[in-house]
Amino acid sequence: MQQPLKFEIEAICKDTGARAGILTTAHGVIKTPVFMPVGTNGTLKSLTFDQTLNCGAQIILGNSYHLYLRPGHKLIKEAGGLHKFTSWGLPMLTDSGGFQVMSLSKLLKKTDDGVFFKDPCGGLTHFIGPAKSMEIQNDIGADIIMAFDDFPPNPATYEQAKFSMERTHKFLEKCVVAHTNSQTQALFGIVQGSIYEDLRIESAKFVTGIDLPGYAIGGVAVGEDRPLIEKISKFTANLLPYNKPRYLMGIGTPWDIIHAIYSQIDMFDCVSPTRLARHGSFFYQNENISIKRANFAQDFLPLDPNCKCGTCLRYSRAYLHHIVRRKEMIGAILLSVHNVYTLINYANMARQAIIEGKFKELYEREASLKLKEKN
Amino acid sequence: MQQPLKFEIEAICKDTGARAGILTTAHGVIKTPVFMPVGTNGTLKSLTFDQTLNCGAQIILGNSYHLYLRPGHKLIKEAGGLHKFTSWGLPMLTDSGGFQVMSLSKLLKKTDDGVFFKDPCGGLTHFIGPAKSMEIQNDIGADIIMAFDDFPPNPATYEQAKFSMERTHKFLEKCVVAHTNSQTQALFGIVQGSIYEDLRIESAKFVTGIDLPGYAIGGVAVGEDRPLIEKISKFTANLLPYNKPRYLMGIGTPWDIIHAIYSQIDMFDCVSPTRLARHGSFFYQNENISIKRANFAQDFLPLDPNCKCGTCLRYSRAYLHHIVRRKEMIGAILLSVHNVYTLINYANMARQAIIEGKFKELYEREASLKLKEKN
Repeated sequence: MQQPLKFEIEAICKDTGARAGILTTAHGVIKTPVFMPVGTNGTLKSLTFDQTLNCGAQIILGNSYHLYLRPGHKLIKEAGGLHKFTSWGLPMLTDSGGFQVMSLSKLLKKTDDGVFFKDPCGGLTHFIGPAKSMEIQNDIGADIIMAFDDFPPNPATYEQAKFSMERTHKFLEKCVVAHTNSQTQALFGIVQGSIYEDLRIESAKFVTGIDLPGYAIGGVAVGEDRPLIEKISKFTANLLPYNKPRYLMGIGTPWDIIHAIYSQIDMFDCVSPTRLARHGSFFYQNENISIKRANFAQDFLPLDPNCKCGTCLRYSRAYLHHIVRRKEMIGAILLSVHNVYTLINYANMARQAIIEGKFKELYEREASLKLKEKN
Repeated sequence: MQQPLKFEIEAICKDTGARAGILTTAHGVIKTPVFMPVGTNGTLKSLTFDQTLNCGAQIILGNSYHLYLRPGHKLIKEAGGLHKFTSWGLPMLTDSGGFQVMSLSKLLKKTDDGVFFKDPCGGLTHFIGPAKSMEIQNDIGADIIMAFDDFPPNPATYEQAKFSMERTHKFLEKCVVAHTNSQTQALFGIVQGSIYEDLRIESAKFVTGIDLPGYAIGGVAVGEDRPLIEKISKFTANLLPYNKPRYLMGIGTPWDIIHAIYSQIDMFDCVSPTRLARHGSFFYQNENISIKRANFAQDFLPLDPNCKCGTCLRYSRAYLHHIVRRKEMIGAILLSVHNVYTLINYANMARQAIIEGKFKELYEREASLKLKEKN
């Protein structure tokens, strides 16, 4: 039987277990660890695909919830799938919509079959559950598709977390049955269980008990207690099979990425680089700094003098300060170039360090920077 | 003495007198006729400089009024001039701010020395007149700079037009005296006179009586009666010296451009391509069409099947309809690529036709399209 995904581990850090791998999909090869920029509606929020590619992106995300509502998965199917509809011909991953039906819509009713919700724009009632999510994602046609999962409230009691985890497991079984393109689209299962280690063990056991091309760690993007979330992410990653790609959903920042790689995770995504850019902020040594600050008005250095992105090679802080203050769209775009490049580059630097046997040094340097910043 | 500009006429249409020329500036060569995209604040509203260049732009505009207020001409001078501050190293032209102090600010007082106005953002009182405009434009350092001129109300009585024209002439004399970089920056004089032919004759006589590297036709971008404006533009162009570049300020549309070239004009600028794009509209055969129209939702053709711009080569109307409706910034960007390319390409097509002796056919084809559209 044709496999939708091949994952080979190329190098392992002997101190931390951090992995450098090669993920082969129907639309191209992805070198891991990899940061995946988010293009919810079939476009990044502020980068064209050329700019996205120039930032070094190997794979981008779409969202089933948004694309189902508008323009509709049937239209995308008619266009020849999301790769063709958007013209991004490289690897794609779609999220299941499980998180968005609960966070972005007016939730009407949750059952073991799925979720009834109101479209925040049109007001019509819709239903998405595991079977429907698979239908949507099969029509959209991304290389990697995600199981439809359930979320507990945040913070969640043990009982809430357990109930939600069990529903996620029932959903997963239904996803596996409903998924019709398993030869070309790789379905990833998602481990839930909130902050409770025994639930994470139970969930990992259940989810990895189903032979899937990859596994994700869910429920870690929300919540304020970052050290606890880092701990549970690392704990969960170690419960996943060694030879399958591991995806930590919804992080990050430069530090989140380094920590995830240290935790032996291979894939990550986040809207943060483009969202921060739209608010006028840029990544600089593990911090987000607003370019609107008055001290940048006459600062002719690049955003980050060590950065090799298209923005840092060409533009000064003073220029960016000026155009962002003038609310020019190009300000958000040039900051997005820097922010997306920075996260992709962190993953690339880590990969290189793993291959060269120097990842532990990189991790320790970043950890001490992080510590310094806190103090 | 060093000349800031060289203009050579390469070919002339024997039927219409339309001109193809080569304009050499300190920052590069411009093949005319040329459409110049507007980058008011030191950036186009929705294209990076790479994208602007990919659209075929040879020269872009900045605006003295905006750049004076923010970030300030002294800061731009400190950065090494606008070419360096923005990183657009190719030819640039700055408008004098004459139009903007009157149209965008709260006007406080007009005298023969200039205009007192309130900054619409900060509320502070400022003054710009011919001498100040030259100081600003000298600091900014564009290759072509414009005389500070006066505008009558629109529509203007004969007396109003005459008064304003005479003030424009006094301003011009002061500009010539104040301009300190005449070896590197080419000052263009502006002919005014509203719709009155005898005033246009008088103004052309006065303005071209001063030996300047180029001349512009002002006061034609405003007003609803397009045929009258076309007539007065052509009339005025014929009053200008043959061997100097002629610039029609503030037009256009595809048709405006063809008509201006037919009128023996060499340069044009307009904010319309990016402004229309931000409102979701694109140029198609002399019309502006909204991509938001429902009939585009399932239309998989490019915006214009005959267009070779980066957007038409890659994206469908259905995709653009989707992302524009979703208010994605990239929608405005991809439509801007098409609209800016389209105007630049009209000028390029006309240039090629002039060189090949086929401009009259091109003009007549466009004129009959224009006529069809009206009926």
